[in-house]
Amino acid sequence: MLFSKLLIPTLKEVPSDVDITSAKLMIRSGIVNRLSSGIYEFLPLGVKILKKIEKIIRHEMDVIGGQEVTLSLMLPKELLLETDRWNVYGKELFRLKDRKGAEFCLVPTAEEGITDLIRRNVKSYKQLPITLYQFGTKFRDEIRPRFGVIRAKEFLMKDAYSFHADEFDLEKYYKIMFNAYMNICIKCGLKFRVVEATSGAIGGSFSHEFVALADAGEEEIVWCNCGYGASTEKAKCFKIERFNNDGPLNMEEVVIPNINTIVDAANFLNLSVKKIIKTVIYITDGNPVAVLIRGDHEINETKLKDLLGASKILIADEQTVISIINVPLVFLGPVGLKNIKIIADTSVIDILNAFVGANKKNCYIKNVNYKIDYDVDIIADVRKIMHGDICSICKKEKLMFSKGIEIGHIFKLGNKYSELMKATYVDKNGKKKFISMGCYGIGVTRILAAAIEQSYDNNGIIWPNSIAPFEVVVVPVDYKNSKINKITKKIYEELSSNGLDVLIDDRNERIGVKFKDADLIGIPYRITIGEKNLANGNVDLKSRKNTKSKILKPECAVAEITQMFYK
Amino acid sequence: MLFSKLLIPTLKEVPSDVDITSAKLMIRSGIVNRLSSGIYEFLPLGVKILKKIEKIIRHEMDVIGGQEVTLSLMLPKELLLETDRWNVYGKELFRLKDRKGAEFCLVPTAEEGITDLIRRNVKSYKQLPITLYQFGTKFRDEIRPRFGVIRAKEFLMKDAYSFHADEFDLEKYYKIMFNAYMNICIKCGLKFRVVEATSGAIGGSFSHEFVALADAGEEEIVWCNCGYGASTEKAKCFKIERFNNDGPLNMEEVVIPNINTIVDAANFLNLSVKKIIKTVIYITDGNPVAVLIRGDHEINETKLKDLLGASKILIADEQTVISIINVPLVFLGPVGLKNIKIIADTSVIDILNAFVGANKKNCYIKNVNYKIDYDVDIIADVRKIMHGDICSICKKEKLMFSKGIEIGHIFKLGNKYSELMKATYVDKNGKKKFISMGCYGIGVTRILAAAIEQSYDNNGIIWPNSIAPFEVVVVPVDYKNSKINKITKKIYEELSSNGLDVLIDDRNERIGVKFKDADLIGIPYRITIGEKNLANGNVDLKSRKNTKSKILKPECAVAEITQMFYK
Repeated sequence: MLFSKLLIPTLKEVPSDVDITSAKLMIRSGIVNRLSSGIYEFLPLGVKILKKIEKIIRHEMDVIGGQEVTLSLMLPKELLLETDRWNVYGKELFRLKDRKGAEFCLVPTAEEGITDLIRRNVKSYKQLPITLYQFGTKFRDEIRPRFGVIRAKEFLMKDAYSFHADEFDLEKYYKIMFNAYMNICIKCGLKFRVVEATSGAIGGSFSHEFVALADAGEEEIVWCNCGYGASTEKAKCFKIERFNNDGPLNMEEVVIPNINTIVDAANFLNLSVKKIIKTVIYITDGNPVAVLIRGDHEINETKLKDLLGASKILIADEQTVISIINVPLVFLGPVGLKNIKIIADTSVIDILNAFVGANKKNCYIKNVNYKIDYDVDIIADVRKIMHGDICSICKKEKLMFSKGIEIGHIFKLGNKYSELMKATYVDKNGKKKFISMGCYGIGVTRILAAAIEQSYDNNGIIWPNSIAPFEVVVVPVDYKNSKINKITKKIYEELSSNGLDVLIDDRNERIGVKFKDADLIGIPYRITIGEKNLANGNVDLKSRKNTKSKILKPECAVAEITQMFYK
Repeated sequence: MLFSKLLIPTLKEVPSDVDITSAKLMIRSGIVNRLSSGIYEFLPLGVKILKKIEKIIRHEMDVIGGQEVTLSLMLPKELLLETDRWNVYGKELFRLKDRKGAEFCLVPTAEEGITDLIRRNVKSYKQLPITLYQFGTKFRDEIRPRFGVIRAKEFLMKDAYSFHADEFDLEKYYKIMFNAYMNICIKCGLKFRVVEATSGAIGGSFSHEFVALADAGEEEIVWCNCGYGASTEKAKCFKIERFNNDGPLNMEEVVIPNINTIVDAANFLNLSVKKIIKTVIYITDGNPVAVLIRGDHEINETKLKDLLGASKILIADEQTVISIINVPLVFLGPVGLKNIKIIADTSVIDILNAFVGANKKNCYIKNVNYKIDYDVDIIADVRKIMHGDICSICKKEKLMFSKGIEIGHIFKLGNKYSELMKATYVDKNGKKKFISMGCYGIGVTRILAAAIEQSYDNNGIIWPNSIAPFEVVVVPVDYKNSKINKITKKIYEELSSNGLDVLIDDRNERIGVKFKDADLIGIPYRITIGEKNLANGNVDLKSRKNTKSKILKPECAVAEITQMFYK
């Protein structure tokens, strides 16, 4: 293709009101056009990249038996009422009415649509398992659209849904889909981690996030070289077994007036913060519980909520605590605490000779020990992961903390939607059963942004070979010079016939302008054809990743590039 | 692919509330799922067909230099206010607000979006001409969604837009696009006509509709073997020159009381209806005009509106006519009519010794002749085409009348949008000019429906080879029989390696069920493999179009089918 014929409106200026490098580069290199806040349009280069990503994804879906469908973009309110998501989604949902007053939303994800399709069309075990997928626009009325296409109002997603006779079959297929998602991320050239994640608005028992590592990302994850990974919200905390020669001492009450926190009290006594047991009261679905946590730890409310199976938890304020226990917050402690369920984080019960509030004003207790001086109802991992924590799987290495962009998320939904929406099938024995279900989403536009976020320099984007809009740019110094023109066309034809996607920069521009644009757009390989090198029968080959170029024969340049794409 | 693994929910029953054969067959054959009124979802077979149609269209667009883009589906109100289409579209537009109150519509067609994109990104004549296209969902809040996907709320369209330095270049490209659209229709296997059409809500000076012939279609067109075609609204009427030996007679006033119409008056006098000149008063943008039309003709209001360049025309009622001319409707006539612009249809002025109202109660005039007894201000073609009319181009043959489905529509927009939206470029001489524009739409989902509407029988669909979901179905009588299984797989592999799209009906069903489904789905070729034929080394080959099958060697069946797709 010829540069002069394409709409590639590159910009020298950096748009001032864009908050992330990938979005700046997408606009500057003519990949997207920003229509309005959170709405982006894909220009020819952008569509070329999206098509390459789509092709990789479609292949992986087809290989594992996925069948492509096209669901509607408008979903009737009635369907989302069946799962209550019409209400749960709140303001994130774009809502509209038709001229007869029927209400619809623009599809945020398609669980209701697909479950409805399946319950209408699948009746028998003979039709299961089945996997359907689509590429479709999704809509979210983001409170603050940002990060370019990453948090946009409209974005392109591949969503897949699988349907199974039982959990066992779902489990088996979930692993197959997991591997397909791994392949997609690898083939798109991404640096990524797979992490255990919380299921959020989609629900279900279990989910994995595929996170492209990027400092600008919103996701916070931990991971270990042993393979373990989790969102910081979900990450399991490892309990180091107590190994201590000291024995438990006798409890000792201490009065320390005019102190604001138990940490200050411990400091006053020169005790380590690791000796403190903080006691925090929560109201969970209306009932109070006391949570014990070590002084240097923080409570992970997601874990607490999951542990209690609560739909809502809320930390109790001073007044509520006084009304329940008749003790101000700062003096709370586990010793003698009655009529309330006590939950201890796993690390708490191992604290030898702990320091706690005495449930009396200005009073604390030293040398408090589990099972001797206090007891608890539940022991569980309810704390936030923190820097320095050891991996709970290999039990050896310290966890790494990274930021990233969520590009994929797969969910084992089980019967959540099939029960709510009555999607059943008849099994071999003529018995009606709920269909087990998984759902699997990957952001096509997000992969594009994440790839840029992972790979750019001061001059522009550096595309992975697999999803570059063009694989090679041929830059004639002067396209009108007949010798240069001839060799340019020859190289173009040879690379093209080798299956490569080649751009000729035929514009009547200075060579500096052509180089700047090639670098900005991020095309992996550049062949420059100028009179000086051509006098010796040579051209100049440069990889976008390297600063140095090579002078070599045209046929060698063609061979070397072709090899890079077929190795 | 194996039938048992695919979601092809065929139905025996005909859905009762579906109004058109193609929609019934699409539902029965498992191509679509109807989600709600006017909203259809495409199942795996449907997506396969759409992808084949898309591939044909994409190829034609790429060949003529089209560049694929992806525009947004939500358009900000501000853009549509610039062209006033926010108001013009009325209730057909789906409207919605984001959480901040900003208003959007779901895109009905993308002229505003693309013109905005171009005015932001095209500055110089060097960037022109340019053609952008996309495949995208379009939305219309139809007053009465019907005919399956033909008048749906959501539908898939390929829309293209071209931008040019001047009308001359646009004109040239319009012809190129015209040919590309011809190719698309031919390659999709459609019987179609191209007709001159009115431009409707899109606007512009000139447009052509591509109409698939189908009795169930809404479009009414006329066409001639000479190549001429037009919508009945737009069709030019041919005026046969008067050839008559009689001369004009003297006017004669006649009084006929108690008559309701001028036709009844003519009947009373035994005069031909072709002798009558009807006089009709219109109010055009507030001003009255009188329109003269022959007794057996009808006024074409679209032609009248175009002729007068009026934005609104309205037939005047009795009261209005009396207030203007002081004569009841039925006695209106051109003789002595004053203070009003008179427009005569071309056929009127040739009526020799015409019969008209006398502008007096119960009075008529016989033997009225143009230029002798009355005059007019404008003579123009303002009548509706009718059966028996001669083609205005070849001036020989009678026009044919057909019904059809509009599948494509191309428009020469000129500067309509670029002037309203200030889309300009700087020409070679540094002068700012408006960009000339064309727009070109083709309904992907409509092509699918039209193809069915043109080709089905009592057993189901008969797909054209080029867009069939599968090209061949191989039907083993018993897939578990090892001999049958082996030859089935061999034929599958050979056809597939020849590039054909093959389905194996591996289901454990009676052969009758398999045949019924193959016929319903409409796969062009069927190879049946049963023990009886196989004993003689033969299989059974049947084309969907023919009732008879052939018994032949497997390799001959493979060769014969392959030949059909490569001839």
